Amino acid sequence: MSELRRDPVTGHWVIIAPERSRRPEDFAPQPVGALDGDLCPFCEGQEAIAGRELLAWRPHGGQVNGPGWRVRVIPNREPALRVESTLGEAPASLLQSWGGLGAHEVVIESADHRATLGKMSVDEVWRVLWAWRERLRDLRRDTRLKSFLIVKNVGAAAGATLDHPHSQILALPFPPPSIERESKGAQDYLTRHARCVYCALVAEEIADDRRVISSDGGAVAFAPYASRVPFEVWVISRAHDASFDEAGDDSLRAVAERLNDVMSRLEATLVSPAYSLLLHTSPVGESHRASYHWHLEIVPRLTPLSGLAWEGGVAINPVPPEEAAQVLRTYDL
Amino acid sequence: MSELRRDPVTGHWVIIAPERSRRPEDFAPQPVGALDGDLCPFCEGQEAIAGRELLAWRPHGGQVNGPGWRVRVIPNREPALRVESTLGEAPASLLQSWGGLGAHEVVIESADHRATLGKMSVDEVWRVLWAWRERLRDLRRDTRLKSFLIVKNVGAAAGATLDHPHSQILALPFPPPSIERESKGAQDYLTRHARCVYCALVAEEIADDRRVISSDGGAVAFAPYASRVPFEVWVISRAHDASFDEAGDDSLRAVAERLNDVMSRLEATLVSPAYSLLLHTSPVGESHRASYHWHLEIVPRLTPLSGLAWEGGVAINPVPPEEAAQVLRTYDL
Repeated sequence: MSELRRDPVTGHWVIIAPERSRRPEDFAPQPVGALDGDLCPFCEGQEAIAGRELLAWRPHGGQVNGPGWRVRVIPNREPALRVESTLGEAPASLLQSWGGLGAHEVVIESADHRATLGKMSVDEVWRVLWAWRERLRDLRRDTRLKSFLIVKNVGAAAGATLDHPHSQILALPFPPPSIERESKGAQDYLTRHARCVYCALVAEEIADDRRVISSDGGAVAFAPYASRVPFEVWVISRAHDASFDEAGDDSLRAVAERLNDVMSRLEATLVSPAYSLLLHTSPVGESHRASYHWHLEIVPRLTPLSGLAWEGGVAINPVPPEEAAQVLRTYDL
Repeated sequence: MSELRRDPVTGHWVIIAPERSRRPEDFAPQPVGALDGDLCPFCEGQEAIAGRELLAWRPHGGQVNGPGWRVRVIPNREPALRVESTLGEAPASLLQSWGGLGAHEVVIESADHRATLGKMSVDEVWRVLWAWRERLRDLRRDTRLKSFLIVKNVGAAAGATLDHPHSQILALPFPPPSIERESKGAQDYLTRHARCVYCALVAEEIADDRRVISSDGGAVAFAPYASRVPFEVWVISRAHDASFDEAGDDSLRAVAERLNDVMSRLEATLVSPAYSLLLHTSPVGESHRASYHWHLEIVPRLTPLSGLAWEGGVAINPVPPEEAAQVLRTYDL
């Protein structure tokens, strides 16, 4: 029998329909291809093509905008939003328009064209999170920017157009609907229960155990109760920080360990699946400090999203998260 | 320069980024394939495989569950929701679950395996809308059902698994987030302006004219101001009815004409694109009668949805709706 489930934070509804269940091997693999490194603008040696760097990590030294980097952040070549823009005044009309104020950056996560979050070392994954945090700390100094999304799309089915491991940072002058719904749900929960809903969720998932993929004292990886797609995974630090840029090194390292572990499991079990990874972090504002809790959401893109899931907001998920967690936690790395 | 735009009803934000603009011919065509008719469960003669009918239109007579039909409605073979279920009592826990109450039906829109909404006659398109309305009228008699979605996915990129022209009806025991956001936005507008926001939108679009693809005294097809994807099109009746099942024959025929016309243009311009079509209709409740206004939203699926658009709720649309409308309205049918 199918079930209706509701995400306790956003109110998103999901139909859990085990009748439609499929095993991981039933999904056609969509391996991430690999271009010839010479042609890839994100490979080491192509810095002039990739663009001037905003941040880089060079463990053995080297010139700015030269080789030797292991993580490198550059502006998006076709930025959807720019800090040079201004919002302007919206007309008092039904159809309102503002200038494209914001920022759009690219984090090149490794010099290795074929690196993945599962194959990297924990240190390398940690450096990616470090770069995200450094950039968010810098971007937050522009008080016109109100919300930040970090998105990693892997594979053509997730909308990626380049294979080289990378993520995008988008700074927005407003909280997007996804974060607005989440932060509102989190504030409502705080009002009613005097507690962070994510901290409560982590406690409940650990106690229940059926959806936990792996955990330690610092962070937890679990299949969310109202998973929208098969093998959806969230990774969350036990340390309560609303905003990602406030997270300490210990918290980041704990999440890097869980992320590296769970991505190894996903990449092996689903054969290098296409996926989207989103960093959810608090919109700007003191009111979110107690209620919000940054986390990562990993959404495998095994089948195209139907109009129902995207536009209708009703996802039909054929794999219950308890089964997905069981498959992932018992996979022998 | 890019622009931020906000949907006046749902509050969805969109970045209009003409720098990323592409011409229709730059999109790889994703033509809808055609199975051998003998193997298709939705073709005429396969009624026993397709399932027992809930409704059919047989212009020249014929046996129930036999051939001779031109439109036929059957239960989904793997229903995500069933009327036989009960909601049950949700536990007072953070993680809540209800029974899969609802309905999930399939409308086989034509006996012709290769028919499309653009190639059909207006009469044939009208019969599809008629079948949707008849089923919604019947389903509304079950007072446990609170909201209805009708979704047509065409092409594998839109999540379709069968090529034969069909749509799905989903009856839900709650309004999904998409409709909830819309109906709230519409009610807010009514409170402030004492007017249906959709009626106001139609008047403004007709006056502005730049996004109108085609219109007559009965209905309008236009590219919405905050289009989330290239070539998004809405079709709306000028007659104010909140709920699709309350629409009169004249209103349905006017929408059938606009839908047939605009789908001809989309199918020709974008070379049989994958797309999702959603019928948005009022959730159950008298309070929506003055504020809501049923309509169709057509969302071409030319590229995979990025994690940003789906999960983040921030769509980056490279084709301004004014350009899309210009391409579609000037296409010589």
